[in-house]
Amino acid sequence: MKLAMLGLGKMGGNMARRLQKGGIEVVGFDFNQDTVNQIAQESGMIPSKSVEDAVAKLGDGQKIVWMMLPSGEPTENQIKALVPLLNKGDIIIDGGNSNYKDSQRRGAWLAEQGLGFMDCGTSGGIWGLQNGYCLMVGANDDVAKTLTPVLIALAPSKENGWAHVGPIGSGHFTKMIHNGIEYGMMQAMAEGLDLIKGKEEFNLDLAQITELWRHGSVVRSWLLDLTADALKDDQELAAVAPYVADSGEGRWTVMESVEQGVAAPVLTLALQARFRSQDASGYSYKLLSMMRNGFGGHFVKSVGDK
Amino acid sequence: MKLAMLGLGKMGGNMARRLQKGGIEVVGFDFNQDTVNQIAQESGMIPSKSVEDAVAKLGDGQKIVWMMLPSGEPTENQIKALVPLLNKGDIIIDGGNSNYKDSQRRGAWLAEQGLGFMDCGTSGGIWGLQNGYCLMVGANDDVAKTLTPVLIALAPSKENGWAHVGPIGSGHFTKMIHNGIEYGMMQAMAEGLDLIKGKEEFNLDLAQITELWRHGSVVRSWLLDLTADALKDDQELAAVAPYVADSGEGRWTVMESVEQGVAAPVLTLALQARFRSQDASGYSYKLLSMMRNGFGGHFVKSVGDK
Amino acid sequence: MKLAMLGLGKMGGNMARRLQKGGIEVVGFDFNQDTVNQIAQESGMIPSKSVEDAVAKLGDGQKIVWMMLPSGEPTENQIKALVPLLNKGDIIIDGGNSNYKDSQRRGAWLAEQGLGFMDCGTSGGIWGLQNGYCLMVGANDDVAKTLTPVLIALAPSKENGWAHVGPIGSGHFTKMIHNGIEYGMMQAMAEGLDLIKGKEEFNLDLAQITELWRHGSVVRSWLLDLTADALKDDQELAAVAPYVADSGEGRWTVMESVEQGVAAPVLTLALQARFRSQDASGYSYKLLSMMRNGFGGHFVKSVGDK
Amino acid sequence: MKLAMLGLGKMGGNMARRLQKGGIEVVGFDFNQDTVNQIAQESGMIPSKSVEDAVAKLGDGQKIVWMMLPSGEPTENQIKALVPLLNKGDIIIDGGNSNYKDSQRRGAWLAEQGLGFMDCGTSGGIWGLQNGYCLMVGANDDVAKTLTPVLIALAPSKENGWAHVGPIGSGHFTKMIHNGIEYGMMQAMAEGLDLIKGKEEFNLDLAQITELWRHGSVVRSWLLDLTADALKDDQELAAVAPYVADSGEGRWTVMESVEQGVAAPVLTLALQARFRSQDASGYSYKLLSMMRNGFGGHFVKSVGDK
Repeated sequence: MKLAMLGLGKMGGNMARRLQKGGIEVVGFDFNQDTVNQIAQESGMIPSKSVEDAVAKLGDGQKIVWMMLPSGEPTENQIKALVPLLNKGDIIIDGGNSNYKDSQRRGAWLAEQGLGFMDCGTSGGIWGLQNGYCLMVGANDDVAKTLTPVLIALAPSKENGWAHVGPIGSGHFTKMIHNGIEYGMMQAMAEGLDLIKGKEEFNLDLAQITELWRHGSVVRSWLLDLTADALKDDQELAAVAPYVADSGEGRWTVMESVEQGVAAPVLTLALQARFRSQDASGYSYKLLSMMRNGFGGHFVKSVGDK
Repeated sequence: MKLAMLGLGKMGGNMARRLQKGGIEVVGFDFNQDTVNQIAQESGMIPSKSVEDAVAKLGDGQKIVWMMLPSGEPTENQIKALVPLLNKGDIIIDGGNSNYKDSQRRGAWLAEQGLGFMDCGTSGGIWGLQNGYCLMVGANDDVAKTLTPVLIALAPSKENGWAHVGPIGSGHFTKMIHNGIEYGMMQAMAEGLDLIKGKEEFNLDLAQITELWRHGSVVRSWLLDLTADALKDDQELAAVAPYVADSGEGRWTVMESVEQGVAAPVLTLALQARFRSQDASGYSYKLLSMMRNGFGGHFVKSVGDK
Repeated sequence: MKLAMLGLGKMGGNMARRLQKGGIEVVGFDFNQDTVNQIAQESGMIPSKSVEDAVAKLGDGQKIVWMMLPSGEPTENQIKALVPLLNKGDIIIDGGNSNYKDSQRRGAWLAEQGLGFMDCGTSGGIWGLQNGYCLMVGANDDVAKTLTPVLIALAPSKENGWAHVGPIGSGHFTKMIHNGIEYGMMQAMAEGLDLIKGKEEFNLDLAQITELWRHGSVVRSWLLDLTADALKDDQELAAVAPYVADSGEGRWTVMESVEQGVAAPVLTLALQARFRSQDASGYSYKLLSMMRNGFGGHFVKSVGDK
Repeated sequence: MKLAMLGLGKMGGNMARRLQKGGIEVVGFDFNQDTVNQIAQESGMIPSKSVEDAVAKLGDGQKIVWMMLPSGEPTENQIKALVPLLNKGDIIIDGGNSNYKDSQRRGAWLAEQGLGFMDCGTSGGIWGLQNGYCLMVGANDDVAKTLTPVLIALAPSKENGWAHVGPIGSGHFTKMIHNGIEYGMMQAMAEGLDLIKGKEEFNLDLAQITELWRHGSVVRSWLLDLTADALKDDQELAAVAPYVADSGEGRWTVMESVEQGVAAPVLTLALQARFRSQDASGYSYKLLSMMRNGFGGHFVKSVGDK
């Protein structure tokens, strides 16, 4: 089996490697040709110089193109550019982090063009190469069936870590919720560890405690494994900025909760904690400080006060 | 009627003034004798040089001592120091922001000493002198009855703004909840205004909008009046530090919710927003940034990065 | 001055009455002709039998049509239906609760048709007839100027309670945030009162306390006035279902916070409390109960257990 | 090595079994003598008929008594009752879920009596017998050293799953935070799954998805393992009441956050979601419904309305 992989970044590059190892032939393309060549050398992947070149190298017969691109415009534009290069029955897979509503719309539009579509929520990060990826697939039955060997090659094992969960869009929907949960779990852990650090009287060792919890506790988890690992070397984190980025899925999960009218306080607050970390101005705090002054004559701390 | 007022700060000082205006004779004491003398001159309050002096100047008959002191040790110690100076049937009033459980304990202990006690939650801040104070009274019936003329003198009017809400402790309990609600209302307003400021496309004038809302809107309120007033001169608040202090009542309200097992998400989050404003280290954010790096190879912003 | 008022429900009907009283001639239309006739009789409003009839009765010259319709399709469809009935320079006002992005889109489209548009966030509810409405206006300068007499007639006074806050869309935006703040304030109050009720030991009287707080306290507000009024007759609320509806603005405010990436925990949690009240199934609670059983062998309460 | 185990419930009983298997002699006591006899028969544990009997059967030399009792009064009373039965240098271990401040107080008091104390936060639930327990130990160095063989026998392995984290109290403190994190992780998962179920359009299979996530995803965790297992048989949970109990540690974690002045929104909201599930009356919702009626004339749903 053979497919084109467009986008060989942290995710796409390792997926190409894992596919090659799993017996799937990959034609790889990335704007960074050094990356293309390096992965080709390492893994036997077929390099290509452009999207057209990549598609051409898939040869005759049904063509399969897997995209690992940033969501939004890059993915949208790539799909549009691919259509004229493909024939009826060919399949485009979006393995990136697209909004599931975009995937529903794109799937419907591609169907009108006679093309198949699969949205594949892909989890596993930089550890996927070694451990396999967790693949949440939205597609029609025939498309999902066609791509089963590819999914098995990427997943941790033949039986586990991949599933055709529902119609087009449901793969990215499932990934979106997965990431929402991830935000909540991370925040829970960060808050707990913050309270341990804050209990100065006990002078506790966060590296020791997170390592301890990995064995037999109720909170043992992969996120805890990584946290314990990170804290081993440095638990002061003096050089790390108190800034947490967020990405589309966390935000979309909260919007989904609003649209459904279903409370999701923990997922929402986990996202908002990240917003707070990104807010350098603290305007709402300034307002509160002014209000307190207004009714109580309370002291207003000025910039520069200690 | 005559009473001693101990503590002539922002609250106690103005209360002494209002009592004098209302025909209640006040013997005032504060460690700051300049304050004592100034208020005495302004209002006709009888000055005193010590707590003993103040109590002595109350003369014979039933003595009434009103404390406006910081909660915790200062109030606790003052009560203990007062007991030997008083006689059976005399009354101590705690008009400060004590924890209601302390007031319950103190009331019971003073009853054993033959002394009456009243806990009076006092709202109104620096505007109380002019507008009158809102007084939430916990006391036995006879004590509350004895002090009615005093309450009327402090309140906005004879009929309004004072009430004997329940037994000893219930005055401070009611004030505690009042402040919890205040935190929530302030936070709601600050969040909304923050979103208005964040909508740069519209370039809205927060002073205009808060003034507008004062008339006929659903959110009209005294806090809005003060906010509109503060924003009139300066809505950038460039010189104000993004730091919001918190006081006992906000924290006790959240603890009450935990003890009762009753959800109070908005009161809690309003308090936690203040905690966040006070947290210069952002350790939990650093942890989250490290975790993201651990599983996703995501960029970790360093201190000093833009 | 003369205008057509389309939609004479709780809001539109009273606005027509107030306009008539304020010297603005109103041609009123509603699908319920009984309502039309009643308001016409009461207030001197000119009745009409259809939108076409209403527009025709505006006579020659610049026509002004004020809509008080449910947001979404009813408003969208009415605007489309109005365009062929109007001439260059005529003005449509949307005084309902539309999403500000819809108003931006509609304003731009109407401008292409040569028509003016104003979005007017309208607060004041059933009390607006008596007190005047708070009007948050988004419009071009000339449109806002033309409509000034109308705004003054609706507002509490000539000087107060109406303002041209910014370009088209900004009126509904400002109203959206107003409602978001309203949700937060209401929730703060409800949580506080819930904790007072939960403190059974004190057996406090919520009607007394809310009335007390109206005078001199920091939380005094119109919402408190209404709450005190409602609790006067009945504080058990035994017949009231524990169900709180929500409307578009509360949800849009949370989405705005997500889009801006600005934390608004209190506004969000206030909305989610309503979602929770609407959730009869409690599926998330069931899941939690099952999880607890899974790791701890904890008892799972069954439906019907006490 | 030999110790007495007081309390042979779900936790204590299995710990006695695991200790026996690990070569530690256990003298077991429980008020339920059937339980005592059954475990004795199964595991070779020495049965006892009373606490006095259990202590006596420890023989001469240093005595070690491990309590697995409900926190609060049962633990407090047992400690007091043990003191006269023990000699200088003997050790009491509290392996239950006590508040860490109680453990600090008890440890100090026992030290005055010449007795050693260890607080051991114990995680692992009903799976501990098979997998080993995660043990978070607060104690003086010599006590911790003495008990190391016991800890190793209970833990998953010699190297992992037990640690002497700090002074007396810090074991229960660490367990408290562990449980706080557990609440947050559970809630995150429940919210995400609730949103998946709420997306009726996709008709997703929660059992399939949770099983899928166990392999290679970022949220893989023991809690997910248990959730997937529970959903395998029944994902409707029709017979499960939407009621989630909570225990001391979750509440104490929130109080710790208030005392430290450190925001922990996710841990707090996870607790409050449980409170909400326990609240049959919904009084705060009733208040909100009344307020909406007060200003907007909005319909108030009555009990019994659909």
